[in-house]
Amino acid sequence: MAYILQVDFKHEGPFGEEMVAAFSDLAKSINEEKGLIWKIWTENEETKEAGGIYLFEMKEDAEIYLDMHTKRLESFGVTNVNAKIFKANDALTAINHGKLK
Amino acid sequence: MAYILQVDFKHEGPFGEEMVAAFSDLAKSINEEKGLIWKIWTENEETKEAGGIYLFEMKEDAEIYLDMHTKRLESFGVTNVNAKIFKANDALTAINHGKLK
Repeated sequence: MAYILQVDFKHEGPFGEEMVAAFSDLAKSINEEKGLIWKIWTENEETKEAGGIYLFEMKEDAEIYLDMHTKRLESFGVTNVNAKIFKANDALTAINHGKLK
Repeated sequence: MAYILQVDFKHEGPFGEEMVAAFSDLAKSINEEKGLIWKIWTENEETKEAGGIYLFEMKEDAEIYLDMHTKRLESFGVTNVNAKIFKANDALTAINHGKLK
């Protein structure tokens, strides 16, 4: 069993390669978060939004991360954080080739 | 380059194994959608929500799917569909072990 955390928020930039340069160290630190299996970094330069899709081993891991991450985003001046936590349905996801590891 | 489509909506059930039984055929049909790489099926029985995280090869594929899927959900009586499309940032995602294939 694994849990999806989806997060998005308004983001004025950087995007693309500049985003990589700005956040590579943060990405490396995210690998140390308890229960994290993977994160997909998301960005939309047209709508000025960014975020992430995370997979966690346990719901509690996702909740603890979201609480910490929301405070970190607030420290960056990001206030409108959309976030939801869901259980991944293993069997249906397997039919559609989704990677839960 | 790949594109994330995140979708969620109010869902009164079924959840879990009953959801698998109800939607396995739909899942199989989703594999035929143009440009789909994978879908992770999401559910939250506590908040009565469900949805999906999809990965598509092209933004246009995600947009066409979302348009069709929104109409399908409406035909099921689902009206409040939250959906956003993002570009996945390959390099940052690679640091965090995200699977974009």
